[in-house]
Parts: sequence; structure tokens; C-alpha cells
Amino acid sequence: MPGSTLLLVLDLIGVLAFAVDGALTASRTARLDVVGVVTLGVITALGGGIMRDLLIGRVPPATFSDWRYLAVAATGGVLVCLFGHRMGRRRVARSLTVLDAAGLSLFAVTGTGTALAAGLGPVQSVLLGGLTAIGGGTLRDLLTGRTPQVLSSGLYAVPALLAATVVVLSAQVTHTDVVGVGSVWALVAAGLCFGLRMVGVVRRI
Amino acid sequence: MPGSTLLLVLDLIGVLAFAVDGALTASRTARLDVVGVVTLGVITALGGGIMRDLLIGRVPPATFSDWRYLAVAATGGVLVCLFGHRMGRRRVARSLTVLDAAGLSLFAVTGTGTALAAGLGPVQSVLLGGLTAIGGGTLRDLLTGRTPQVLSSGLYAVPALLAATVVVLSAQVTHTDVVGVGSVWALVAAGLCFGLRMVGVVRRI
Amino acid sequence: MPGSTLLLVLDLIGVLAFAVDGALTASRTARLDVVGVVTLGVITALGGGIMRDLLIGRVPPATFSDWRYLAVAATGGVLVCLFGHRMGRRRVARSLTVLDAAGLSLFAVTGTGTALAAGLGPVQSVLLGGLTAIGGGTLRDLLTGRTPQVLSSGLYAVPALLAATVVVLSAQVTHTDVVGVGSVWALVAAGLCFGLRMVGVVRRI
Repeated sequence: MPGSTLLLVLDLIGVLAFAVDGALTASRTARLDVVGVVTLGVITALGGGIMRDLLIGRVPPATFSDWRYLAVAATGGVLVCLFGHRMGRRRVARSLTVLDAAGLSLFAVTGTGTALAAGLGPVQSVLLGGLTAIGGGTLRDLLTGRTPQVLSSGLYAVPALLAATVVVLSAQVTHTDVVGVGSVWALVAAGLCFGLRMVGVVRRI
Repeated sequence: MPGSTLLLVLDLIGVLAFAVDGALTASRTARLDVVGVVTLGVITALGGGIMRDLLIGRVPPATFSDWRYLAVAATGGVLVCLFGHRMGRRRVARSLTVLDAAGLSLFAVTGTGTALAAGLGPVQSVLLGGLTAIGGGTLRDLLTGRTPQVLSSGLYAVPALLAATVVVLSAQVTHTDVVGVGSVWALVAAGLCFGLRMVGVVRRI
Repeated sequence: MPGSTLLLVLDLIGVLAFAVDGALTASRTARLDVVGVVTLGVITALGGGIMRDLLIGRVPPATFSDWRYLAVAATGGVLVCLFGHRMGRRRVARSLTVLDAAGLSLFAVTGTGTALAAGLGPVQSVLLGGLTAIGGGTLRDLLTGRTPQVLSSGLYAVPALLAATVVVLSAQVTHTDVVGVGSVWALVAAGLCFGLRMVGVVRRI
């Protein structure tokens, strides 16, 4: 599968993970109604990508020019409305952790890839990848009145920046921009971020 | 009156409504002083339009390139400083509801119109109209530490998206972009949103 | 020293002041750990400039295209991690006030200068200078769940807007854009803002 398709697929899986995560947060932690659930799901899912696109001048952002992003984000919110109430409290808490870590890892990789493809330098691409990864979750926490996880968790921004660094290095070593980066490295970077974040959750760092 | 003039007039009335609303919130709910009152009024009035202009790449936003927006927003804040203290508590509460609903309805219409005029597709224009409508109020609620109404009220985003849909449909049926859309449809859309929102307020949905 | 160099130097001193301020806030007021301290320092330091660059369409913002901004911001955060714990409570409180006022004053001047250099009109430049000055601190307060100072303090936005006005007037009188404005006026404007803000702090306005 070509690099650009891989980026899109990982991006959409990240959107779905964050949409379900934001919607579950809305329905359980913040006790919002159906509209609030879908809205917070969509904002959490698309917030990071919108910030990224604004900063590289890609307007209107992919969210607005590519209907697949919105469709996937809305689907995540609707799924939670339909099936979320069947989940027990502990399963919700565990799901929130895993989904947030998955979205964080995928967006760190795709955000960095998008930045490289837009011609940004290595350091800038790492930063933009990190911002894409933490953007949606930070909006979610702000809107529900909680301290953003990026500030309260020790291992949250660090794994994202690490994954972004792996993507940049692999793109430089293989002499391609990330659209052509090997799928393997993108997946290694995402897996590294996810693993490190879960270590942080388990050890409460 | 040509479509572009209608858009501007509706936009400025929306700016005034949100400015008075934000300033009243600052002086009564958040108990801020004169500078805080005018500042929150201006942010509430202009926040939605700035987000919209950033997302369609219209920089500097109309707020900065067209002095009328800022003048109207500041006027709203100053009016509240001069006359706000004469209002009783119940009248303030009622005014806040009506002004917020008015701003929401007008910005849903003008935001959608601006998006269509900028060449965005139908779905994107509906979304951008919705974002323009809820943007200022969401900033107001975030800055005063409250849960944003778009998340806590069932009938808040829905009426805005509905009005945006009416604008897009009427523009497609009449084969014009919204700058040329009939005034009637713009007013129908705004009225629909306002009415639906007030139903939501009365029935506490 | 040419005007553009002066702008850069003042900008970087402002970045350092806000970085130390944000990091101290994170470590003392919000009791965050090392990553949170550096992250909040960087966000406080760069937030205002990123907002400014987005609004004038300068993307990617200077933060991303000029590594010196990030280096200085990160240095501020690291300094607080290394030496911040040695400071007594009263000294932290006093430092927070002075650093915030310094960043506010410097960013008001450099934000206005950047706006003038980008071709914005006088009123727009004053506004953008004010937004640059209050942007980072407002993000800091939002992320740590406090009422933004721009809303709660009477003398916060006013000194920033006054300094911006001095910069615009001096640029018009000397018939140059601000890149060529005399160093003297830039420093006078920053000093005026700083002095006025400190009067506000001492008299609790």
C-alpha cells in the first residue's frame, strides 16, 4: 500500500479512536446528552488535525474538504450513543485509556507525516506531530473542565514526541518524505508510543 | 438589498447580540469589572467569525480588516457598562437566553453564507456555519469556567446546523451562491433556528 | 541595531519571560511534574505568537520555522525544573507577577511591530499587538483552570493596548513601518506598559 494511503488509513483509525473516546467521556464522565456526546466525540476526533492543518496553512482543513473524516468521527459518536450504556464502569475506564493512547500514537505518526509532506523541517515536523497527537484530547479536557492530560501525565507528550522523532529519522534515512516512508517504520513508531503510554498508565507516571 | 449587504447586516446584528450577551455574562455571572466586561463582550462577539475566517484561509479575518465589526462589538460592551446595572436579575437571565439564541441563529446563517461564497461544498458549509454559530459562545463559557452550552443543551447545535442546511438548500435550489440567495430564505433559516432554540430553553431540553 | 533585530531580541526576551512564568505556574500553583512544567512553559511562551501568526496568515508560524523561539522557550522551562524548587513562596509569587508583566509588555510591542510589517492598518495592528500580549497568559490560565487575568484584572489589557498604540503612532510619525521604528519608542512603549501593569498589581486594580 502506498505511503499516502497508509497515512490516510492510520489517520482515520485515529479519528475513530478519539471519537469513541470523546463520546464516552461525554456520556459517562461529564454526563452529557446525545447531542453533547456526538459533539464532544467529533471535536476530540478532529481537533488535533484541524490545529495541524491551520499551522501549515492547509485551509480549509482536511476535515472540511474530505468527508471521510467527518463521517468516521460522527460514526464513533453514534456508536457510543447506541452501545455505550451497555458497558460497565470499569470497562469504560479501561476503554478510555486504551482509545486515548491509540489516538495519541496514530496522530503522532500521521501528524508528523503530514508535516514532512508539507515541506517542514525535521524539528518542526516532530513538534507538529506532537501537537496533532495531543490537540484533540486537550480540547476534550478543556471543554469538560478537567486538567489536560498532557499537563498532568508524565508519559503523555514524551511518547508522542518520541514516535514523531522515529518517523522523521526513518524518513531521513530512507531519503523519502513520509508519504513514501516504509509502512514498517510508521507502525513501529505508533507501537512505541502506545507501549510507552501504557507503561505510564500502569505505573501511574 | 443585495445578498452581500444582507449578510453584512445580519452579521453585525449577530455581533451586537453576542457582544451584549458576553458583556452581561461578565458583569453578572462572572462579576468582572469594566475592562473584563468589554473584553468578554468583544471575544464572544468576534470569536465565532475569527474561527470561521481562519478555517477558510481569509486572513486577516474580517474583524481586523473591517472596522465595523470591532466598533459594533465594543459598542455592545460599553452599552452594558452604562445601562446593565439597571436591569433586574430575572431580566438579565431572560436577556442572556434571547441574545444568545439570536446570535446563534444569525451567525449560523451568515457563517454558512460566507462558506458558500468562499467556494466550500454543501456539507462543509453547513459545518462551518454551525461552528461560526457556536464558536463565540463556547469561548465565553470556557473563559468563565462553565460547561459550554453546545455540550450541555440538547437543542443548541441542532438548530444551528438546521438553519445552515436551509441556507445551503435554498442556495442550491435558486442556483446561486449565498451572496445572491433570496433574503427570504436567510430570514426563514434564522427564524427557524431561533424558534427551535427557544423551544429547547422553555422545555429545558 | 536595525529594527528587525530589535524586534527579534525583544520577542525572544518576552518568550523567555513567559516560559519561566508558565513553568513556575505549573510547578507551584498547579503542582505539575517535570513534563507538565516544561510543556506549560512552552505553551505560555509561544501561544501568543502562534495566534498572531495565524491571524496574519504567516504559516507555518515563526515558532515552527525559526528554531530560536522553541530553544528559548524550552530553556525557560528547564531552568525552572533545575532551580525553581530553591525559591521561597513569596519570591515565586513576586516573580510570577514581574515575569508576566514583562512578557505582556514585550509582546505588545513586538506583536504590533509584526502586524505593521505585515501591512495591517493602525487599528488592526493595535488589536493584534494586544492579542499577542494576552494570548499566552490566557492559554496558561485556561489550561490550569483559572479565570484568565485579562478578564479579572482591570489593568491588564489596557496597558498592552496603550503600548501598541504608542508603537503605531511612533511608526506613523517617523514614516516607517515598525521594522524601522526607532529603538527608543519601542522601549518607551514596553516600559509604559510594564509600569502601568505594576501600578495595577500594587493597587490591586
